[in-house]
Amino acid sequence: MPFSDFDHQMMSQALTLAKQGVFTTAPNPNVGCVITLEDKVIGEGAHLKAGQPHAEVHALKQASEQAKGATAYVTLEPCSHFGRTPPCAEALIKAQVSRVVCAMQDPNPQVAGRGIKMLRDAGIQVDVGLLEADAVALNRGFIKRMQTGMPFVQLKLAASLDGKTAFKNGESKWITGPQARQDVQVFRAKAGAILSTSKTVLDDNASLNVRWDDLPASVSQVYEQSSLRQPLRVILDRSDKLIENTALRAKSNLNLFKSSGDILLIKAIDNVPTDSRPVESTSVNRASAESAALIDDSVVSVQARLKQVQLNHAQPVQFDLSLLLKQLADEHNINHIWVEAGATLATSFIEQGLVDELIVYLAPKLMGTDGRGLTQITGLESMQQAIDLTIKDCRMVGDDIRLIATLNSK
Amino acid sequence: MPFSDFDHQMMSQALTLAKQGVFTTAPNPNVGCVITLEDKVIGEGAHLKAGQPHAEVHALKQASEQAKGATAYVTLEPCSHFGRTPPCAEALIKAQVSRVVCAMQDPNPQVAGRGIKMLRDAGIQVDVGLLEADAVALNRGFIKRMQTGMPFVQLKLAASLDGKTAFKNGESKWITGPQARQDVQVFRAKAGAILSTSKTVLDDNASLNVRWDDLPASVSQVYEQSSLRQPLRVILDRSDKLIENTALRAKSNLNLFKSSGDILLIKAIDNVPTDSRPVESTSVNRASAESAALIDDSVVSVQARLKQVQLNHAQPVQFDLSLLLKQLADEHNINHIWVEAGATLATSFIEQGLVDELIVYLAPKLMGTDGRGLTQITGLESMQQAIDLTIKDCRMVGDDIRLIATLNSK
Repeated sequence: MPFSDFDHQMMSQALTLAKQGVFTTAPNPNVGCVITLEDKVIGEGAHLKAGQPHAEVHALKQASEQAKGATAYVTLEPCSHFGRTPPCAEALIKAQVSRVVCAMQDPNPQVAGRGIKMLRDAGIQVDVGLLEADAVALNRGFIKRMQTGMPFVQLKLAASLDGKTAFKNGESKWITGPQARQDVQVFRAKAGAILSTSKTVLDDNASLNVRWDDLPASVSQVYEQSSLRQPLRVILDRSDKLIENTALRAKSNLNLFKSSGDILLIKAIDNVPTDSRPVESTSVNRASAESAALIDDSVVSVQARLKQVQLNHAQPVQFDLSLLLKQLADEHNINHIWVEAGATLATSFIEQGLVDELIVYLAPKLMGTDGRGLTQITGLESMQQAIDLTIKDCRMVGDDIRLIATLNSK
Repeated sequence: MPFSDFDHQMMSQALTLAKQGVFTTAPNPNVGCVITLEDKVIGEGAHLKAGQPHAEVHALKQASEQAKGATAYVTLEPCSHFGRTPPCAEALIKAQVSRVVCAMQDPNPQVAGRGIKMLRDAGIQVDVGLLEADAVALNRGFIKRMQTGMPFVQLKLAASLDGKTAFKNGESKWITGPQARQDVQVFRAKAGAILSTSKTVLDDNASLNVRWDDLPASVSQVYEQSSLRQPLRVILDRSDKLIENTALRAKSNLNLFKSSGDILLIKAIDNVPTDSRPVESTSVNRASAESAALIDDSVVSVQARLKQVQLNHAQPVQFDLSLLLKQLADEHNINHIWVEAGATLATSFIEQGLVDELIVYLAPKLMGTDGRGLTQITGLESMQQAIDLTIKDCRMVGDDIRLIATLNSK
């Protein structure tokens, strides 16, 4: 159906409202709503945090009795089910709006269209698809999880112009400049989880959380410190370096444990047959009592935030990353994961085709032939075998270059 | 002195005119001229080719008798000496203009200010420095040669995102896409000389000239095929691979020799003491009679365009690149050289601090750990030792990224 200029303007405004929640709504989607009567805005709302009212509820409250006969612009199909809040479709019907414009259907194929049907059954005109691409872009993680059961995966890489991530001796601080590191904080802040390895935690003493003070001013101006949401930090501990009790005690000064935010340690279990059914092959527990007994008082606060996932793995050296991602989506409602580790994990993600988006920082440096490479991809011998990317965005971030790219399928 | 908005507008127009000659004026500078009377343009001109009239002459001819009392905007100080054409300062005096605005002085410190003095001595008001930075940017090569006796050096690099220039087996066609290769044609077309190696000529069968058909439409629309100027191709032939007669005959099918444009082969002379005086250590000759006798009819046309420079070199494996550049400036009037070869030559240029500008193409590919690296720089072990660059420009060229960078001095 043809949408008017006014329709476009109002949906655009609803999308802007939706973006207010980009750092805080996870695992819920970002949604905005604008209600108009006789081409005047009478209510606006955004969903800001899971458990808090949905965008439509805020907007309807503001519109009050004027909502009768009004048009509601919503960036996502209004929900039709009771979750932590009552269904928004019902609220819109009760308020007697006469028209609802949705940017897109609910991405969950099991429920898509139910909210729209509820509204239409109540005699409300519903028009779907206005600025749909923008609405999709806003909730890529939520949509992917709803449609596939997997989170949206961003893999961060950083290297010099000659593709080196560290010198031979491991020195890598700092390849990129302060603005690029601030930029990484923004990506972390938007993610539901940050995935890394015990090697990165130990080598770089990485905290892998969001430091509000390190966010660029453009973000900290709109994202209040009191609303700060820490992504779940998921640490692959292949060699039990972190989970091992004495090591944990010795390493209680690690920034990972000293900083705020939950931690999920993924340990390897040897000699257990691989099972493709994630429920059977996984158990999520507080650290065992045995471990707890060995941890002294100084790391109790760490212990309280520490969980262990025991995960089967097909080979002694590799985690089943696909299974892990599925579990993070299923059990922790992770829409969107930010992978930030070394070349080994990056190579696994790339080779297993698990990357939705590569974020590559290239520093204006040459580090020479002796340095460590960006990946550990081996065996490529011809241009046909090269891994092809498509660059979606290329810009300067401070003195560095930032690329956003997708992997082309062969 | 304060320049008016009109002054800015007219000098900007003169700069636009000057750019018309960007592919053709070498070794002369690009110059544009606009003449106005009572705020109306009465004459315009650009210098398009060495030996042809200067910009001021074209503009004065168009202005004719109206030039009396007019203002002339010139992007470079009018010349004061007789070269292949009479001095422009004299022409402006004869035409009785009342004011001359120059963007910049003559860059040659030996003659800078003479043209201005001639004009002022004749009672003409001369204002200097309007849009000077733009005028400097237009003639970086000419200015550097005039001021230092060395050409402006652009070094081209091309690699995958992980910093590889070829697979282990040498395959490198094509890392970058067609638009990037067109872009290289534009850089070549602007250069006075292209510097490469016999290895690149043999490995890639590179012609290293400008192919008018391969220029992007934006260039070929303004640069007529009949005006095509081929840069001098300077080929370092360290191991006498190209200069050796039988090899030359066998390789008469090399694109280097089949394509148009002059070639200067640089051969190594062993066992000659290095001499810092370039005149003594160099001789420029047609290929020797002995060589000519061995070359059959099919390569006569090559032979006619072939010159040899015998160049001392301090070490058996390295040419004295600084000396070579100086000779190219002194003896061949090369303002601006485009270096396009492999990692060995690139490394020498970078390590010897001879690069004014790096042009780096990065292709959206990962080629893996086995490929060949962007440079052969070794021995760097800390971030303080890394070679720091400043990125001046970063943009997409087709599917590839193009960076323009300068090397920061330590």
